[in-house]
Amino acid sequence: MSTKTSEVDLLIIGAGPAGLMAAAWASRCGLNTRIIDEKDSRIRTGQADGLHCRTLEIMDSFGTPSIAADILGEACVIKEIASWNPKESCEEHIERSETIRSGEEDLPGSRYPQVSLSQGSVEQAFLNFLERDDNSSRVERNLSPAKLHVDEASVEDNDAYPVEVHLRELGKYETAGSLEYTATQEPIKEIIRAKFVLGTDGAHSWTRKALGLEMEGDRTNKHFGVMDFIPRSNFPDIRISCAIHSSAGSIMTLPREKGLVRFYVQLAETSDLGDNFDRSKITPDDIINTSRKIMQPYTLDYSHCDWFSVYTVGQRLAKTFSHHNRVFLAGDAVHTHSPTMGAGMNVSMQDSYNLVWKIATAIHTGNREILQTYNTERMATAKELIEKDRAMSEFYCQGPSADSKKYKDFREGFRDFVSGVSVTYGPNMLVSSAGKIDEDGNEKMTNDDTGSGEIKHDKPTRRKDSQQSLPQIYSDPKLATGTTLGQRLPSYHVTNHFTAEDDHIHRAMKSDGRWRILLFPGDLANPPRFRSIRDLGAKLEATSSFINRCTPSDQAIDSVIEILTIHTSNRNSFNALDLPDIFHPWNDKLGHDYWKIFAKNNEVGDDIYKSFGIDEEKGCLVVCRPDQHVGYIGSLEDLETVGQYLERILLPKR
Amino acid sequence: MSTKTSEVDLLIIGAGPAGLMAAAWASRCGLNTRIIDEKDSRIRTGQADGLHCRTLEIMDSFGTPSIAADILGEACVIKEIASWNPKESCEEHIERSETIRSGEEDLPGSRYPQVSLSQGSVEQAFLNFLERDDNSSRVERNLSPAKLHVDEASVEDNDAYPVEVHLRELGKYETAGSLEYTATQEPIKEIIRAKFVLGTDGAHSWTRKALGLEMEGDRTNKHFGVMDFIPRSNFPDIRISCAIHSSAGSIMTLPREKGLVRFYVQLAETSDLGDNFDRSKITPDDIINTSRKIMQPYTLDYSHCDWFSVYTVGQRLAKTFSHHNRVFLAGDAVHTHSPTMGAGMNVSMQDSYNLVWKIATAIHTGNREILQTYNTERMATAKELIEKDRAMSEFYCQGPSADSKKYKDFREGFRDFVSGVSVTYGPNMLVSSAGKIDEDGNEKMTNDDTGSGEIKHDKPTRRKDSQQSLPQIYSDPKLATGTTLGQRLPSYHVTNHFTAEDDHIHRAMKSDGRWRILLFPGDLANPPRFRSIRDLGAKLEATSSFINRCTPSDQAIDSVIEILTIHTSNRNSFNALDLPDIFHPWNDKLGHDYWKIFAKNNEVGDDIYKSFGIDEEKGCLVVCRPDQHVGYIGSLEDLETVGQYLERILLPKR
Repeated sequence: MSTKTSEVDLLIIGAGPAGLMAAAWASRCGLNTRIIDEKDSRIRTGQADGLHCRTLEIMDSFGTPSIAADILGEACVIKEIASWNPKESCEEHIERSETIRSGEEDLPGSRYPQVSLSQGSVEQAFLNFLERDDNSSRVERNLSPAKLHVDEASVEDNDAYPVEVHLRELGKYETAGSLEYTATQEPIKEIIRAKFVLGTDGAHSWTRKALGLEMEGDRTNKHFGVMDFIPRSNFPDIRISCAIHSSAGSIMTLPREKGLVRFYVQLAETSDLGDNFDRSKITPDDIINTSRKIMQPYTLDYSHCDWFSVYTVGQRLAKTFSHHNRVFLAGDAVHTHSPTMGAGMNVSMQDSYNLVWKIATAIHTGNREILQTYNTERMATAKELIEKDRAMSEFYCQGPSADSKKYKDFREGFRDFVSGVSVTYGPNMLVSSAGKIDEDGNEKMTNDDTGSGEIKHDKPTRRKDSQQSLPQIYSDPKLATGTTLGQRLPSYHVTNHFTAEDDHIHRAMKSDGRWRILLFPGDLANPPRFRSIRDLGAKLEATSSFINRCTPSDQAIDSVIEILTIHTSNRNSFNALDLPDIFHPWNDKLGHDYWKIFAKNNEVGDDIYKSFGIDEEKGCLVVCRPDQHVGYIGSLEDLETVGQYLERILLPKR
Repeated sequence: MSTKTSEVDLLIIGAGPAGLMAAAWASRCGLNTRIIDEKDSRIRTGQADGLHCRTLEIMDSFGTPSIAADILGEACVIKEIASWNPKESCEEHIERSETIRSGEEDLPGSRYPQVSLSQGSVEQAFLNFLERDDNSSRVERNLSPAKLHVDEASVEDNDAYPVEVHLRELGKYETAGSLEYTATQEPIKEIIRAKFVLGTDGAHSWTRKALGLEMEGDRTNKHFGVMDFIPRSNFPDIRISCAIHSSAGSIMTLPREKGLVRFYVQLAETSDLGDNFDRSKITPDDIINTSRKIMQPYTLDYSHCDWFSVYTVGQRLAKTFSHHNRVFLAGDAVHTHSPTMGAGMNVSMQDSYNLVWKIATAIHTGNREILQTYNTERMATAKELIEKDRAMSEFYCQGPSADSKKYKDFREGFRDFVSGVSVTYGPNMLVSSAGKIDEDGNEKMTNDDTGSGEIKHDKPTRRKDSQQSLPQIYSDPKLATGTTLGQRLPSYHVTNHFTAEDDHIHRAMKSDGRWRILLFPGDLANPPRFRSIRDLGAKLEATSSFINRCTPSDQAIDSVIEILTIHTSNRNSFNALDLPDIFHPWNDKLGHDYWKIFAKNNEVGDDIYKSFGIDEEKGCLVVCRPDQHVGYIGSLEDLETVGQYLERILLPKR
């Protein structure tokens, strides 16, 4: 009997949040994708529940109907965080020490708050998205990978499908997760030959084990109970997030959707109990009883326990996130830590968000070198996550903090990271260098993104990187001091030139695989300025321009690189339809694209020039990668360098 | 052969916007409903396309996932309206005279803009809503009513199903709309016996004809071409709404979704052409050619015509909107006019939004007198619509206005009405009287809502209205001068006491059939104030309270009348969980309802006390009907009058 064999661009193993994010992104990038999961449904209760503003930005960027809107319709918004400590006059009772704003929506250029929602509902929002999208793959369930083989001879061949994965269907009496990584004797249902494979199969990742990769790190002896329940309590802060420290122990609380609340309750350190701590014996009543002691004088009871678990604090990281730049790992498969920061699901989804557009570019251009930036960019982020988590766990286990300023600084420090907006990728092929004009600390940065010892595993060995001999590309970050090379562009309000609608600039930067050049020409009502931008448009749409060279001839001029223009003029002071078509390309079915020219003036009162640190007289251009991270900043006059920068990445190699 | 017979609470004939609104509302009110339509699908192109802020408020009020959000994801927002007139220096060319904000979102207590979207997409948003909602009916298509009979002997019997409607399935070769109102010889597929029937079957309403009702009014001799198309033009205001007057004629424009633009183009007056104007000979090219002359010196061409039509200006109104308070008519079935205001679809949907909750109340309480308010409330609105439309049509046909202030005043005058937020229902059973303390003009108002000669048809004749002998109920509108009796409550931001989330108070006033008492107690951190509101809560939840008397004993205390409290205190200054349960009722599955107590302080900076004209020291209570219209305003001390007011409407008659 011959086994069915299929070829795909991308096979995703595991349909949790990171895998589903990859599937959504792959559909937007036009990849031929399969996504499999050994479970027969999405998870129903418990697990991760924190969502931060950068994650919601990404979810919204996939377009209408918005995954973010879907989630915000159900999720619980975390607006405040309170700190409760022992009462001075009565040590057994707690009192509120301080209430602070959670404030992720107050971060520079951010527009979403921190929210909480069960992982199952987050998965459902993605499943709804995939269901509505005709181009996307659907999750294939009850399918388990049985063998993974990478044909090393063809990993450098752009037309090859070098990764072979054998799939088994789970039998009626098998349970997901019970399969060992061994060649099984059961019949193989299908063989998938993939250009690329992404393993998003969780902390016990089959894919990681198949690659022979170990996790490195430790567990502590600190145990916490986690419980999602309907509380009956007169504790006044039951619907905001709290850090409660009392003489009886610590609790962290997080309000949740549908009247639920999540408690993280400090249970014990192993040494306290000898080595006899037995996680399996902990019950919901134990967790509530411990909580009740900590929360004196407030009452606490519950009518329904939705989910509970016990975890031991620990942090672990894989040595590498990729194998020959053909098999990649993301999420819990390569980094695990404690859940109290509510960061894990976010970092995991952001892993695959970092990767998928690079795979699409590699397939379309033959330029696979860019794939090594996945490992460097995301491993640095994972390391920071793990350091932060270690610090936070220690902080919470220490108990009441006498120094509330220290507490506040600490929370703010990790808020910026956890929110996702401060994640910054160092210089590499996709992020130009700040160059000599940068401050001291940055001078060490180079475009060599394989410099770290840890990622040697991933360095292409058989083919000399032809790009390494190319000259370094330097940005001029002084032209937009409110943006950061390698960081996601902050978002501010602008007014659509044609429709007068106010919206965030991010809303014009959809995740559809395109690169974007944001032009900041200043005042176009000034005739010389108008003429110079008209001439710039003519250059950009010339047959020999880098835009035309990077765009397949059968595709629209804005299908690979899109131009967005943000001027400072009164909208009625010049006729933008007199600018060249590249600023508002024509399409027979949809007419002109009126959604590419904006005025900085808007009713909200944001000033995007000021916020981005752009001089209205000088102007500048900012190039954003398909994931909205800033790749290049330069002057309006120097089209040559921006062309060089983009052609290295986007010019087809064949 | 016996024909299948079914019984329903409500049969809706016609699944256009008004019928679909009724179906959505009926599902939220728990009515057993059927909705039929003779067409085999929703409309695909053309027809109505204007949506105004009150309509979007209503759509959002049905809850998550929001119909309004669905529509806003697709619709085109109308931010600006420009006026173009002949250029002084060159009469053949037009120039921009003025640009004003459309500004519906700037109206008091409003939170939605004016938008445009094709009627088909609006219908689709409702169909999606019905599809997702397990309790709702689905549209049954290819079904045409063949006979309607009202059993007059049982119209006053609360248990009866006095309206019988025979249904025929449309055959393969029949076209929707081709059936005459005659008893047909074709077999009847089903007989529906309904408590109530709503005819939302359009300008040629079968239901209206079945009741023998005529439309009254006239047509003019003015003809307009309407066209939805993809323009290719250098006219700079092609993506905002314009009123263009030139020596060659007038155009009104409305930008639309998917790159479309709608033009209303003045074609001819019949007298100009003798009586030879033949609508059927007009082509899209004719409409564009006429437009091109009007829009000199700008270019105009088109790549795709989505829909076009020719209409003759006219206004017509039915004599009554109801028959024995058992069969009702709504939308185009009872009022038709010209489309240029973009109001028709809105007023039509608001007709059925006014009706359905009253039907639910009549069924649940046996109190059918309230149904006559449908006719009085909505006929008054329809008359205003028709007057406004007549004025607007004349205004546009007059051509260029020398007086731009007059134009502005005119637009603002009809904007308030068209937006839907200024619609005000006079005193009747459901709207208490402003009483003696009101200004002169209102002294004539009485609770007798059957006073108009035109609606005698609808006056119950067989049963003396027992309520007529009851004393009039008077509000004290001075306690909340920023609200208007009979008008929908404006919406401002408040902060949820427990979650710290800011949102519009409207978001807490979902369309679920409940009445709401909004309490404004001022500062609850003040102990005597806290005690008095605690005592008020105790009275409200007492077994003998009007709330308990109006609520079936097997239902939750907040299922008929809900209490919302908005205080002025710092949220951390008192423990709201120490207030009686009626302020945050307990439910075993969902815990306490933390979404009923709010603080006026919020990050947006709205002041709901100030905006509502409420004195923080005095406080007050405002009762809103299930459609958010203000029914009663009184002091916190006088529970007796509010009880009287609500018991008249909600106390079960059996």
